[in-house]
Amino acid sequence: MLEREIIELISGLGAAAAPEEIVGIGDDCAVIGRGRDGLLLLSTDTLVEGVHFDLAWHPVRLLGRKTAAVNISDIAAMGGRPLYALLSMALPDDFREQGLGDFLKGFEGRLSEYGLVLIGGDTVKSSGPLMFTVTVLGTAPADQVLYRGGARPGDEIWVSGILGEAAAGLELCRRGLGAGKKDWAQLVRAHLDPEPLVKLGRLLAESGLVGAMLDLSDGLATDLAHICKASGVGAEIEVARLPGSAALEAAAGVLRLDPLAWQLKGGEDYQLLFTLSPGHGEELRQRIQTELGREICRLGEITSEKGVFLCRSDDGGRLKKEEISYQGYDHFLTNATS
Amino acid sequence: MLEREIIELISGLGAAAAPEEIVGIGDDCAVIGRGRDGLLLLSTDTLVEGVHFDLAWHPVRLLGRKTAAVNISDIAAMGGRPLYALLSMALPDDFREQGLGDFLKGFEGRLSEYGLVLIGGDTVKSSGPLMFTVTVLGTAPADQVLYRGGARPGDEIWVSGILGEAAAGLELCRRGLGAGKKDWAQLVRAHLDPEPLVKLGRLLAESGLVGAMLDLSDGLATDLAHICKASGVGAEIEVARLPGSAALEAAAGVLRLDPLAWQLKGGEDYQLLFTLSPGHGEELRQRIQTELGREICRLGEITSEKGVFLCRSDDGGRLKKEEISYQGYDHFLTNATS
Repeated sequence: MLEREIIELISGLGAAAAPEEIVGIGDDCAVIGRGRDGLLLLSTDTLVEGVHFDLAWHPVRLLGRKTAAVNISDIAAMGGRPLYALLSMALPDDFREQGLGDFLKGFEGRLSEYGLVLIGGDTVKSSGPLMFTVTVLGTAPADQVLYRGGARPGDEIWVSGILGEAAAGLELCRRGLGAGKKDWAQLVRAHLDPEPLVKLGRLLAESGLVGAMLDLSDGLATDLAHICKASGVGAEIEVARLPGSAALEAAAGVLRLDPLAWQLKGGEDYQLLFTLSPGHGEELRQRIQTELGREICRLGEITSEKGVFLCRSDDGGRLKKEEISYQGYDHFLTNATS
Repeated sequence: MLEREIIELISGLGAAAAPEEIVGIGDDCAVIGRGRDGLLLLSTDTLVEGVHFDLAWHPVRLLGRKTAAVNISDIAAMGGRPLYALLSMALPDDFREQGLGDFLKGFEGRLSEYGLVLIGGDTVKSSGPLMFTVTVLGTAPADQVLYRGGARPGDEIWVSGILGEAAAGLELCRRGLGAGKKDWAQLVRAHLDPEPLVKLGRLLAESGLVGAMLDLSDGLATDLAHICKASGVGAEIEVARLPGSAALEAAAGVLRLDPLAWQLKGGEDYQLLFTLSPGHGEELRQRIQTELGREICRLGEITSEKGVFLCRSDDGGRLKKEEISYQGYDHFLTNATS
C-alpha cells in the first residue's frame, strides 16, 4: 500500500463511526466541534531516523526545532492557532544519554516561539532508530477552518514562497556540502530548520478569500493532487510561474540536477499552498507583502478537468500539458536520507 | 536518564509556560480546561516492537486491540470517558504488506467497543522496528477527574483485580508455553489482550470517594510510588492481601519463579490502583461486585512516612517492612520481550 492508500483505509474506518461532532477527517488536521469556543484541530506526525532525518548532518537542537515546526505547520495549514503539544519519543540508549537535552531545548524553544505548551508525552526505549511522534492541538473559529476540499474551478492557485529549497538543502547535506557556500545556507536551513507559517495561515483564514489550503510536505505534484482529489477538481500550473531562487539554480548547476524536479517533487517545504477566489489575488499579495514581508506567488488555476497538469510552451510556442499528480515524495517509494 | 527522570524533565519544560487553562501535566493524561463542557483529557503512548511487543507470539489482530486498550486505559485511569483516537504508525515494508489490515481490524474493533472514533493519524516508513503511537482524547466533569496527587494519610489503598497475570503471561509466551495448559489462558490473555477498565473508572470517579488513581502499567511497586510522590505521602501494603490466582501460582511453580515478583514488579496489568477515604471501601466493594461483577481488593494504607513499604510478619510474628519504591518495570533498565 502507498501512504495515501493507507490514509484512505484509515479514514474509512473512522468515517464509518463518526458522530456529528466530527467535522473533518483526512485533512492536515482532524477537526472536532467544540461548541461556542470554535473548533478543535488535532494532528499527529512521526519522524523516523533514517527515513525523515539523519543525525550525520542534522544538529540535534535543530532536529528538535524541526520536529516541533512540522507539526505546528499542520495547524497553520488549517488556518488555526496552535495551542498544545504532546511528545512521544522512542530513544536508543546513546541518544538518551547524549542528545536528548539539546533536542528538548530545540523542541521547546520552537514551541515557545509559537505560543504552544508541551502538556504531555511518552518516553520509551527504541530497539532500533530514534523516533519522535508529536501530537498538536489548535483551535479556529468554525467559519475560518480551511480544508483541502474547498477548491472550485476558476480559483487561482497560490503558494507562500519558494519551492524546492528544502529538497535542495537535503541533497547538499547528503553529499557533505551542507556547510559549503554561503549562499546555500538558505537551502540548508530550509531542510534543517523549517518555519511554520502560522501568521500567514491565520491571515488567509480571516480573509475569507481562500477556498482550499494545505502545507507542502510531500511536494507540489502530490500535495496539489490532494487538493484536487478532495475538491473534485483539477489544476493547471505554469512552469514559468514556479518560484525559485538564485541559490536553488546555483545548487542545481553544481550538483547537475534539475531544479524543476525539486520544485515539483521535493518534499518538506512547509510552504502554504492555497486557492483564492478569482480576482482577489493581487490585493491579497500586496497586503501580505506589507504586513508579513512575504512574497506569495500565483502558480495557475483550478479547472474542472481532473488531474494536475504542468503547462509549458514548446519551442514552437505550442502549449504542452503534462499530468504530474502524485509524483512527489512518498516514504514508501523512496528514502529521504539515503 | 531513567524514564521517570525524563518525564520530570519534560514536565518541568511544560509547567514553566503553562497557562491557566492547563489543569494537569505528568499524570496518566494531560488535563485541559474546556469551559462548561468539562475537562479535556489527552494522553499519548508509544509501543515499540522488541521492547513492548514481539510478533513471534503476539497475533497481529490482538496487538491492534492491545494498542488501543493501553491508551484507552489512560483515560480510564483519570475517571474519564474516552472519545477519540489518533494513530501514528512507523511500518517496516513486510508489515505494511501483510499485517496492517489485521492490526487495523483489531485496533478499530477495540475502539468501537469503547465508543471511540479514529479521527486521524500518520503513516511512515520504519527503517527498523514496527512502532505505534496512539493519542487518545477523553472528557470528564471538572469535579470528577482523578489525579495521582490526591492520596492522604489514612486513605485505604485498593486495586481492581489480580496483580501479576500479564507478567506471568508474557513469561509463558517468551518460553513458548503460551498455547499450553488451558488454565494458563487467562494469564496469556492478560498479556496479549488487556481490558481497559473504563466503566469502573467512571463509577469510581462518580462515587466521590477516591483520592488518587492510576492504571498499573509499570508494576505496583513503581506505580504506587508515583501516587506517593505526587501526593507527598507514603504507603504500606501487606503481602498477605496481594490478590493472586491459582493460574498465577501454578505458572510460577512450573517456571520456578516467584509469583510475588510478578505481583509487585510485573508491568502491564492495567488494573486500576486507587485510594479511598477510610471506612467506605467495603460498601464500594459490594457495589462494584453487584454492578460490574468485579472483585476489588484492599492492599493497605496511605501513611505520612514517605516511601512504599511491603509489610509481612516473619516466623516469629514480628512485622517486617521493606521499601520497594520504583522496583517495577522501567524500559530503560530491562527489556520486556527478550
